[in-house]
Amino acid sequence: MLEELKQEVCKANLKLVDYGLVILTWGNVSAISEDRKYVVIKPSGVDYSKMTADQMVVTDLDGNIVDGSLRPSSDLMTHLELYKAFPDVKSVVHTHSTHATAMAQSERDLPCYGTTHADTFYGSVPCTRHLTPEEVDEAYEKNTGKVIIETFSERKIDPSAVPGVLVRKHGPFTWGSSCKKAVEHSVILEETAKMALLTEQYNPKAEPAPQSLQDKHYFRKHGANAYYGQK
Amino acid sequence: MLEELKQEVCKANLKLVDYGLVILTWGNVSAISEDRKYVVIKPSGVDYSKMTADQMVVTDLDGNIVDGSLRPSSDLMTHLELYKAFPDVKSVVHTHSTHATAMAQSERDLPCYGTTHADTFYGSVPCTRHLTPEEVDEAYEKNTGKVIIETFSERKIDPSAVPGVLVRKHGPFTWGSSCKKAVEHSVILEETAKMALLTEQYNPKAEPAPQSLQDKHYFRKHGANAYYGQK
Amino acid sequence: MLEELKQEVCKANLKLVDYGLVILTWGNVSAISEDRKYVVIKPSGVDYSKMTADQMVVTDLDGNIVDGSLRPSSDLMTHLELYKAFPDVKSVVHTHSTHATAMAQSERDLPCYGTTHADTFYGSVPCTRHLTPEEVDEAYEKNTGKVIIETFSERKIDPSAVPGVLVRKHGPFTWGSSCKKAVEHSVILEETAKMALLTEQYNPKAEPAPQSLQDKHYFRKHGANAYYGQK
Amino acid sequence: MLEELKQEVCKANLKLVDYGLVILTWGNVSAISEDRKYVVIKPSGVDYSKMTADQMVVTDLDGNIVDGSLRPSSDLMTHLELYKAFPDVKSVVHTHSTHATAMAQSERDLPCYGTTHADTFYGSVPCTRHLTPEEVDEAYEKNTGKVIIETFSERKIDPSAVPGVLVRKHGPFTWGSSCKKAVEHSVILEETAKMALLTEQYNPKAEPAPQSLQDKHYFRKHGANAYYGQK
Repeated sequence: MLEELKQEVCKANLKLVDYGLVILTWGNVSAISEDRKYVVIKPSGVDYSKMTADQMVVTDLDGNIVDGSLRPSSDLMTHLELYKAFPDVKSVVHTHSTHATAMAQSERDLPCYGTTHADTFYGSVPCTRHLTPEEVDEAYEKNTGKVIIETFSERKIDPSAVPGVLVRKHGPFTWGSSCKKAVEHSVILEETAKMALLTEQYNPKAEPAPQSLQDKHYFRKHGANAYYGQK
Repeated sequence: MLEELKQEVCKANLKLVDYGLVILTWGNVSAISEDRKYVVIKPSGVDYSKMTADQMVVTDLDGNIVDGSLRPSSDLMTHLELYKAFPDVKSVVHTHSTHATAMAQSERDLPCYGTTHADTFYGSVPCTRHLTPEEVDEAYEKNTGKVIIETFSERKIDPSAVPGVLVRKHGPFTWGSSCKKAVEHSVILEETAKMALLTEQYNPKAEPAPQSLQDKHYFRKHGANAYYGQK
Repeated sequence: MLEELKQEVCKANLKLVDYGLVILTWGNVSAISEDRKYVVIKPSGVDYSKMTADQMVVTDLDGNIVDGSLRPSSDLMTHLELYKAFPDVKSVVHTHSTHATAMAQSERDLPCYGTTHADTFYGSVPCTRHLTPEEVDEAYEKNTGKVIIETFSERKIDPSAVPGVLVRKHGPFTWGSSCKKAVEHSVILEETAKMALLTEQYNPKAEPAPQSLQDKHYFRKHGANAYYGQK
Repeated sequence: MLEELKQEVCKANLKLVDYGLVILTWGNVSAISEDRKYVVIKPSGVDYSKMTADQMVVTDLDGNIVDGSLRPSSDLMTHLELYKAFPDVKSVVHTHSTHATAMAQSERDLPCYGTTHADTFYGSVPCTRHLTPEEVDEAYEKNTGKVIIETFSERKIDPSAVPGVLVRKHGPFTWGSSCKKAVEHSVILEETAKMALLTEQYNPKAEPAPQSLQDKHYFRKHGANAYYGQK
């Protein structure tokens, strides 16, 4: 079942390697079916060099395996929470990409220092709070999803306008309207996290980009008046 | 029309990828025709892996499309301003290369710390002022060109001697007497921006290269007494 | 003799190059035979591009060559000490990978700043004390092994839970239950050392990951209740 | 004439690209003939992708071209000074490799922070003094060679024990008993310069490696009692 989506998810997982975002077996991509009943996700701990589309695992939204002979990624429950809470999200990506992970470890939001960031993320990319020891013990992966959702809800951030997050002491998750978009958001989150550190190293008093510039760049690529790219 | 120039511009755009200066669809190269009536530029938001010469867009100096079926790069109007103000420039390149962009985000000029810089850029590479909210709203890309020109004019910098600029909170533009030269200037701007940060990290009190050394290196490669390279 | 193990050791040495952990002839991998009587190790100072399995050197646990026509790696005696002291170790890897070596040169332990580290190393990766001038003069490589063992013994660290070390002013050693695992630990030590520096640069007051999170990540991959990867 | 040496010099120049030490046309390798009467050097400003052995230029020790139709590297006179002053040197390499150049721009010696450095360079790699404006104007490249020689002479450094230098505000030169060795020294100088910066970033109070360790590593690879590599 869902053969086409398995192909897409497999290909997106391999793209993470091409983009230099994952090493060894770290990282995972999933996507949700059109009817939003099933999720296709990478199996856990499988070598990227030997990964094939038919190894992808299909689960329902409670995490029950409905197709596939391998265990799903151990981060499955985080992905499922995001699909349930963010209805526009079609694909979720998790990596341990170097700079985004280090910034998550530093427990900071990623500020918008320029147009490279503003083209994709409208405002800061938030860093979640710590999970409590109870949240970690009880249902760790599910609670990781819940704390992401709480962050967007409490800080009134639209997950379509900021398609990514830094999970404190862990690393980045991104999402999008397709696997391709979700993976690209991981690429951009890594690059803008790297640029943010360099910006602060060039100038420790660096300030966010002016709001007018952030608005201009975000809205020339998104929404009704966008004029970037082809129609 | 301008088939040869389209080939050259397409090839130069692909070179940006080879040099590691662009990811995804970021960056664009244009060139102006011999009679300086037409500009050939990359289409907006097209994958580099599928880019062909016949996708290049030809416009006049007001930005009207005169050949091509795709939208031109959204930065077209910036390129056009530079061609109109800098009569020796034959090609313009824009990237979001990591270090040059971070330095632009840090709102600093790039100082000349050594001969690697002095071989190509005679003195600091300037960072532009902020655009006002009005300039951003009204004609953003055109005004980006105008603020580059203003920077060179007010600071009395010769755009042939300093073939590049850091646009504040945005990123680098470079130019040259050919697509090849303009792209090389982007390579060198990225490398010297990286070296400048490292120089300051090795020694926070680092100082610019002595003027005599800057003169020597610049003029052994440029002008009537140059003796670098082949005749 | 031990042809299969020679193949495995040769392949693991070449993997170090693929992973970008060694340049020139730096680095070496060894493995111990099932009966723990013989060790197979890379020859000293041989080009990786010309390395073949039959060049691997076989020694006994006193370092006597029992098979092979080339000199063994000059670090052989360090490897042997580790096999004798750590009975679960099947393979040892030494590299001069950039960040792990720099951290060893900085004379610091590698703190656990997040889950990327906790997935593999349970707590800090220790940095050894200086060897005394006498220890250096007398039996340098053997004493390098001894000071590693002393570090784990005095600080009560389990070498299975922390499969790597930073040798002060020298560089990293890692180990594992197979060549593949030992090499992966070198990859992860380099990556987590890099992330640790970046974490401190993003936030000079960065703190280790909470113990509950370290426990969760380590034990979801190791021990009786592990649920990462395939059964 | 000297066809074999031309092949060796050409190949060594191309190795600089493989090792990531040069971009564009930066960098040059030369070698001296057995009778120390002729020097073979890269031509000036030629693309590496099109470089062939028969383009190499042969000069005498005064810099007169005795074979070849292209101009020699503009740094020729620096190479010649080194051959005349350092009788054991068979090959000289100049690059603008990123970290070694940034350290030269920072006007600092490269300290020996660990065994990676000590394996090749016995003690600090010195940074030269500034050339005076007169030295720059009068015979720049020759005086660059002279200031290198002065540095080694005044500081009583043996150029065989420290086969490289940082030319202030310019970049690294290395040398060796063959093109292969001289190129490897450029690789190692770049890597140890990078590691030195990282070491200081991990620990701003980092100190040089103890003398006993520096002695051990240098002399296990060099001199009568060396035991690294194959006999």
